[in-house]
Formats: sequence, structure tokens, C-alpha cells
Amino acid sequence: MRILLSNDDGVYAKGIQVLQQALSQIADVITVGPDRNCSGASNSLTLLNPLRTQTLDNGFIAVNGTPTDCVHLAISQLLDHTPDLVVAGINHGANLGDDVLYSGTVAAATEGRHLGLPAIAVSLAGREEAHFATAAHVTVEVIKKLKSHPLPADQILNINVPAIALSELKGIMVTRLGRRHKAETMSSDTDPWGRKIYWYGSLGPELDAGEGTDFYAIANGYASITPLHVDMSAYKSMDTLEQWLAGIRL
Amino acid sequence: MRILLSNDDGVYAKGIQVLQQALSQIADVITVGPDRNCSGASNSLTLLNPLRTQTLDNGFIAVNGTPTDCVHLAISQLLDHTPDLVVAGINHGANLGDDVLYSGTVAAATEGRHLGLPAIAVSLAGREEAHFATAAHVTVEVIKKLKSHPLPADQILNINVPAIALSELKGIMVTRLGRRHKAETMSSDTDPWGRKIYWYGSLGPELDAGEGTDFYAIANGYASITPLHVDMSAYKSMDTLEQWLAGIRL
Amino acid sequence: MRILLSNDDGVYAKGIQVLQQALSQIADVITVGPDRNCSGASNSLTLLNPLRTQTLDNGFIAVNGTPTDCVHLAISQLLDHTPDLVVAGINHGANLGDDVLYSGTVAAATEGRHLGLPAIAVSLAGREEAHFATAAHVTVEVIKKLKSHPLPADQILNINVPAIALSELKGIMVTRLGRRHKAETMSSDTDPWGRKIYWYGSLGPELDAGEGTDFYAIANGYASITPLHVDMSAYKSMDTLEQWLAGIRL
Amino acid sequence: MRILLSNDDGVYAKGIQVLQQALSQIADVITVGPDRNCSGASNSLTLLNPLRTQTLDNGFIAVNGTPTDCVHLAISQLLDHTPDLVVAGINHGANLGDDVLYSGTVAAATEGRHLGLPAIAVSLAGREEAHFATAAHVTVEVIKKLKSHPLPADQILNINVPAIALSELKGIMVTRLGRRHKAETMSSDTDPWGRKIYWYGSLGPELDAGEGTDFYAIANGYASITPLHVDMSAYKSMDTLEQWLAGIRL
Repeated sequence: MRILLSNDDGVYAKGIQVLQQALSQIADVITVGPDRNCSGASNSLTLLNPLRTQTLDNGFIAVNGTPTDCVHLAISQLLDHTPDLVVAGINHGANLGDDVLYSGTVAAATEGRHLGLPAIAVSLAGREEAHFATAAHVTVEVIKKLKSHPLPADQILNINVPAIALSELKGIMVTRLGRRHKAETMSSDTDPWGRKIYWYGSLGPELDAGEGTDFYAIANGYASITPLHVDMSAYKSMDTLEQWLAGIRL
Repeated sequence: MRILLSNDDGVYAKGIQVLQQALSQIADVITVGPDRNCSGASNSLTLLNPLRTQTLDNGFIAVNGTPTDCVHLAISQLLDHTPDLVVAGINHGANLGDDVLYSGTVAAATEGRHLGLPAIAVSLAGREEAHFATAAHVTVEVIKKLKSHPLPADQILNINVPAIALSELKGIMVTRLGRRHKAETMSSDTDPWGRKIYWYGSLGPELDAGEGTDFYAIANGYASITPLHVDMSAYKSMDTLEQWLAGIRL
Repeated sequence: MRILLSNDDGVYAKGIQVLQQALSQIADVITVGPDRNCSGASNSLTLLNPLRTQTLDNGFIAVNGTPTDCVHLAISQLLDHTPDLVVAGINHGANLGDDVLYSGTVAAATEGRHLGLPAIAVSLAGREEAHFATAAHVTVEVIKKLKSHPLPADQILNINVPAIALSELKGIMVTRLGRRHKAETMSSDTDPWGRKIYWYGSLGPELDAGEGTDFYAIANGYASITPLHVDMSAYKSMDTLEQWLAGIRL
Repeated sequence: MRILLSNDDGVYAKGIQVLQQALSQIADVITVGPDRNCSGASNSLTLLNPLRTQTLDNGFIAVNGTPTDCVHLAISQLLDHTPDLVVAGINHGANLGDDVLYSGTVAAATEGRHLGLPAIAVSLAGREEAHFATAAHVTVEVIKKLKSHPLPADQILNINVPAIALSELKGIMVTRLGRRHKAETMSSDTDPWGRKIYWYGSLGPELDAGEGTDFYAIANGYASITPLHVDMSAYKSMDTLEQWLAGIRL
């Protein structure tokens, strides 16, 4: 099996290094990641400037672009063989609920899916680097399973693993995305020259973290797996919309 | 009615100026957009650096950030009153099919929705600036209708309008997202110093542009309205996934 | 006379607009400036990415690059006729003493000189925008004089004007660069996520602001003109250096 | 002896790694460099965003800023002890003649000088990485000499070494800066979307490369050492300027 590995924290981050080693036990792994921390990059593309690559001593390829750029560039230009699977992570910090919309790690997986490949995003819900090993272990097990149980062609898996030892992990839950409360997450300040600046700050409190959500799984010591679909069309609303549009006279 | 207007082409672009004037006929409009072209920004956030604002002579507020930053900053920090609606556009160029995943204009609308507000993204499917007026007209009519027919709380509308005169427009179609073929859209080159570089290039050919899609509507002279839902959870796959995960032993 | 006008605060700044109007009384002026605030850009070049231009409604040309890029691009690619003079400013804030090393405005003038043209940098030593008119007036008078008294081929003029009404200006002093004390100008802080960050802060106190310096002129109500030479070779030290190098055995 | 080492090619470049090892034979070396290639950064400062550091596995500290930022941050915030010397390099490619104005490597040395320290910039005039060893050797020998022959307080040394084996090096010449012809170094092109772009291209041909210049030394197989002074005041022109200004009536 050939795996393309990427992330959004950048190619020098601990999480991608641990995952590269774990995946190398079961597959040929090629790692192509951003040369800088791209947290919050979402599915952004570098359209106005060209991309460049640099191969590091450990064989990782660093790209001066976003996670989406990395996966697109790798598959369309850099790799000799199309990979069998795209894996993104291990993200430093959780990607739960609304986070998935902004996450560059989830975006790297989505880009793999767009290019026709099965794809998985993996995040450590916590900061204790020792527990990247737990997330790597879960990922390897899921991938083994994936071989015989392929995903639908328009979906990816979003895995979050609590930052605890493997021995403490209670299991894996299939979940839906919860929601954070988004308001009040930005603060204003002044820079040292007295000019007003604004920062994103702490994450909002949870708004929907009830049973069945990814928040709930993590809070209770389970790894969370959420299937995400890539097609954003809201089919259910089409009829209604059609009715009220009928009244518009251009 | 109060409208927050943003875009991804930047606050100096023609499309946002035309739309601001049209919307001002029916609402109080506050315009907050990026200070530079952010095409392809998707839902990216500026997490590592602070945001700054500058109010221009025409009252528009320019932000050194992404479309998502603009909407989030406006609603959480800049506006005295929460707006009734978020509008993003008029985008210079179409946002059809897979484009919505990468579009900063669609992302601006999505961010409005995340913060609890109805939201619309508008794009001109073509480059002839004279026809921004057509897109502006369609947008105004849809907004008038929206007052009495509110959208579901987890959806936005993605409007694309062909670049033709209003008199030639055949009507409005409710559509689902089509798909572009993604492969082969990147090319390699060398910079003037002989170093290898890579560029995204022309958009892929259409892979699913059949009847019912947004591509189809535009190709046939109709404005396209696609309802998009924001929750990416793939509810349908949860049972299946649960079954095969049962076999994993950690 | 043809003048190429640029700055480092960006093409939307008040200072360049006031100066453009004043210079238009005595010359054909073409304005090419950065599309964003580039304070502190020094002589930096954009080598890894391409430059792009956008012509604004007022005829100014905005470039996605540094002040040096603007002057180089204008002279080598954009202008039909080589200008007779390069003017940079009016800078928002003083460029005194060591500031000239970091100033993008001074760098724009230096680039003009490198390309073989007489060049002047102008800064307002203060923030009261009403007094840009004073700096513009001084600049126009100096330029008139410059026609009959050309500068040496390796020098530029660095003009600073106090932020006072023209009627209060005591005159113009020819000065040498003073010096600021550089230490203790940086501070550390944490971002909202608890990560350590560092900012440049307030300017250092003056270390050499005695009679004859540019600091002294401004402090006493005079405009300051400092001739700057572009060749950094330290001719005086060459003999000494040659002697002690003689002892090196490779 | 304590040495602060920096560069402009970035902390992952080969040149800074070779020099770090050579300098470690004669001093305690702390390496603080940009996290990305900053060629052409000149003395630019990061004023609008905060700086961040990351300590790499090899002990090098990577900064998300310019070479000037690195030296300023290191001396004012990061180091426990003020270093005795600032060294910048080994630059990948020559810094000869006008290049010094744009070079981030020379700027790193200049910043050391501004903060009161002796400073040296070192460049390899060629691309063959095997010969970084020659440049490192010359640098070490010059530093040994510098201990007993301090530089004037307002000067730095700019060293260029030809990309040849040490055994082929003919010696060291003290030089003045030559000059390149600057015109015709930019080219225009179109990006894959058909929009016009401009690139800096090949370096200009030599305009002044005669005996005594740094160009001449390199071309003849010698290392070149040019003393550069930091004060740009053109003292010689002050009298003349004073005379013609006398005629200005404000």
C-alpha cells in the first residue's frame, strides 16, 4: 500500500513525524507537508504565487503552500505512482465540531478525496506529545480495516483521539459533528505602537456536545470517528426553494 | 434591514462595489472586505497574526485578512448592531461545483451562517464587468423574497449568474453542485533563476454538468441557486461504519 | 519634467496623495506604490514570487511588492519614458538617523539612484496629517532648485519636515544623520493562545541628536536635508585592513 | 568567545550549517536564523506582526522573520549573554557590488554593528556546496585575526570567497565594492490564467569590475574582503548643498 501523508502544522511538527513512523510499518509512505505552520488554512489554495518544493534530510518534502496545495501538488506532479490512501495529521490539537471547516488537516484529506482517493484526517485532542503514539496506533488499526471496508466515494473519515495512553483508551465511537458557540471568540488589543489590533482567541464553549457528538466521545475517553461528506448540496431544501423562487419576477 | 457585505476579491474590486450600490437601495449596508485579492482563501483564518482595519474614503472597511476573518471580525467586534443578513460577492468569476470548497466568497457566507445569520454568496459566471448589474439585480430580488421565506438555520444560498444582460437571462434554476474533473490542473515551470516552480492552471473540464447541476443552469442562460448545508456529518454512513469498527481491537 | 513617485506606506496613504497633487503643479507625475503598508521594508526585493500591478481609479498603480520593487518595475517595465527624478514619500512619520537603514521610503529613492536617476525621500516628522502640506511645499521648492544644482551621481537627499504649519517653519538645515540608541526596543508578550511572541516597540531614545544632526533640525523647527551616499565602501579603512590581513596564512 | 550566527537563506540552508560547525571549533556559537529563505530581504523589519521562535533538534533557533529581525531579537531578547561577534552566512551565492544593498546576509551583520558589536558577512561566490568549506576556513582565519585587530565602531566586513578548493585559493584581497549594471534585469510574463506578471531575473552585467573591486578579486581566484561603513551621511556634499539651499525662500 502507498500512503501520501500531509498535515497543517508543517513538516517539522512532531505529530506528522510520529505518524510517518507508524504508517511506515504497514505501507510505503511519502510525506509532503507545508514548510510553515498552516493551522486554520482550511481548503485554501495558493493561486497568485507559484509553489516550490524542498526535500529535507529525512526525505520529507516541504512545500511553501497550504495543506491543500501539498496534496494536490503531490498527486498531480510529484509522485510517480498514485497513492492508495491520503492521511493527514497527526494534528496538534483537536478538530471537533465546527473546527473541521477551518482545519487545514481535514482539508488535506478532503483534497485527497477530491482527487479520487480514500482519505483520513487524524488529530490529537490535547497537547501532550507523548500521546501522539495513541493516535498513531488508532490510525493504523483503522487503515487496516479500511482495506476490506472501503469508504463511499464522497466521504472522508475525521478521527480525533484523546491525549491519553493507549491503555486508558475506552474504544472508538462513530460520531456526528458537535458544535461550538462561535461568538465572543475575538479580542481587541493595541500593538506596541498604539494601533488597534484584533486576535482570534480561545475557542468558544461547546454548544452541542451531547451524546453522539465527537465532543462527547473525547470527553468520555473514546476516540471519535466522524464520516464527513464532501458534497455540500442541501438536497432536502431544493423543493421548498423552488417554490418560493417561482414568485420572483426578474 | 441591515446587511453585512464582504467578498474575496478584495474591497477594491468592481463586483463588491456594484453590489454595495444595489443593496443600498433596500438596506443599510456595511462593507468589510479583504485589503487584497483572496481568491482561493476558502474558510481560512488568520490565527498567527493580528488583524487590522482601515476605513476607506467610500466607507468600506479593509481588513488585512481573509473573507472569513472579515465576517467574523465585523460581527464580533466592528458592528454596533448584528446584521440581518450576510452577503458575499459579487465574485469575479463563477463558483460552481467543487469551486465552492475553495471559494473565499462562499466561505464569507458560511461564516455568517456559523454566527447565526442568513447568508448568500453571489458570483458572476464570466468576466464582462458590465454584467455585474445582472447579478446585482438577481441578488436583490432573492433577498426581497428571503424576508418572507427564511432559510433553514444550517444552510446558505450559493448564487451564480451568467455574464449576460438581464434581458437575456432566462430565469432562475434551483440546482445541486456539479463536479469538475480535478486532475491535470497543475503545471510545472522554471523561474527566471532556473529553479522549478509549480502553478495551478486552468480549471478542470466538467465531470458532472448534467441537468440539475449549477453548471447546466449557467450553460443554458439561467441564474443558478444552490442551497448548501454547513454540517458536513455524513449521517447515512454512520451505521455501516459502526459495524466495521466493531471488529477493531485496540 | 517627469517624476516617478512612490512611498512605503502604500498607495492608499494620505502622504503620497498630498505629494502627488503638489508635484503635479510642476511636473508630469506617475505614481507607483505598494498595495499595502511596507513600513520597515528597507531595500528588500521580491525575488521568489512574481509582481503584479493594478491601476486604480485615480491613475495610481498599485504593486504587490516593496518600495524597491515599485521603482525598479516602473523604470524597467511600466514607464514609456525614463523619468527625470524619483521622489518617495511623504512618509507617515520621521526617517531620522538610523531609521534610514530600515525605511522603505528612503529605499525607494535609493533604487532610483541605482538606476541612474536623481532621487529624493521626504518624510513628515509627526503624525498630524494637516501638515503634509508643509512637507509637500518644501519638497517642491527643493526640486525647483535641484534643476540647476544637480546632485552627485551617487547621492540622494533625505528630507524630513516637522509637522507644523509652513508659517511656523524656521527654515531648512543641511544635516548629518544622528543616531538612536537601539537597545531595549523589543518586548515580549503572549498571544491569546498563550504562545510567546515578540514585537518591535517604541523607538529608542536619541543617542546622538546634537547640533548638526537631523534630529536637532527637527527639534528646533527646521526642515532637515541630509545628503546620503549609496556606496558603502569604507575607503579609509582599506590600508589598515590590508596590513593585518597580511598576517593571515590560509 | 561567543558568536551569534545568522543568515538570509534560512536556518535549514547548507551554508549556515557548515559555518556553524567551523565556528564551533573556536567559539560558543548560537544560531538564530529565518525559518524561510529571505534572499533579498535587505535590512527589512517585521513591524506589523509579532515574531515567534522555534528551537530545532540541532539547537538552531528559527524565527518567522527577516535576518535583521533574527539578530535584533537574539541580542535584545533571546541571549543570556551579549555575544562578542555577529557572523552572517555562508550565503548561497555572491554578495558583490550593489548586491550588498539588497542582501539579507549583509543586513544581518549590519544589525549586529548597529547594536554595538563587530560583525562579518560571508558569501560563497558560486553554487558548488562542496566549497562552503573554503569560505568557512577563510572566515575562521579572519575572526582569529580580528581579536587583536578590532574593526572601527561603524564598520562591518563583507567577505566573498570563490567556490573553489582551499588549495586553489590565491589569497585574500581588500577591495572596494564594484558595481553591476542594473537595467534590463526584469522580465514580464503571463501566469497560467493569462494575467501579466513580472519577475526579477538574471543579475545585471558588471559595470565596474576593475582592479580593486570585489568582482575583480573573485574573478582572479582571491577571497575578497570589503570594509563597509554603516553611516550613510555624505559629509563631502554638505557645504555645496548648504550653498544652494540658501537660495530657497519658503
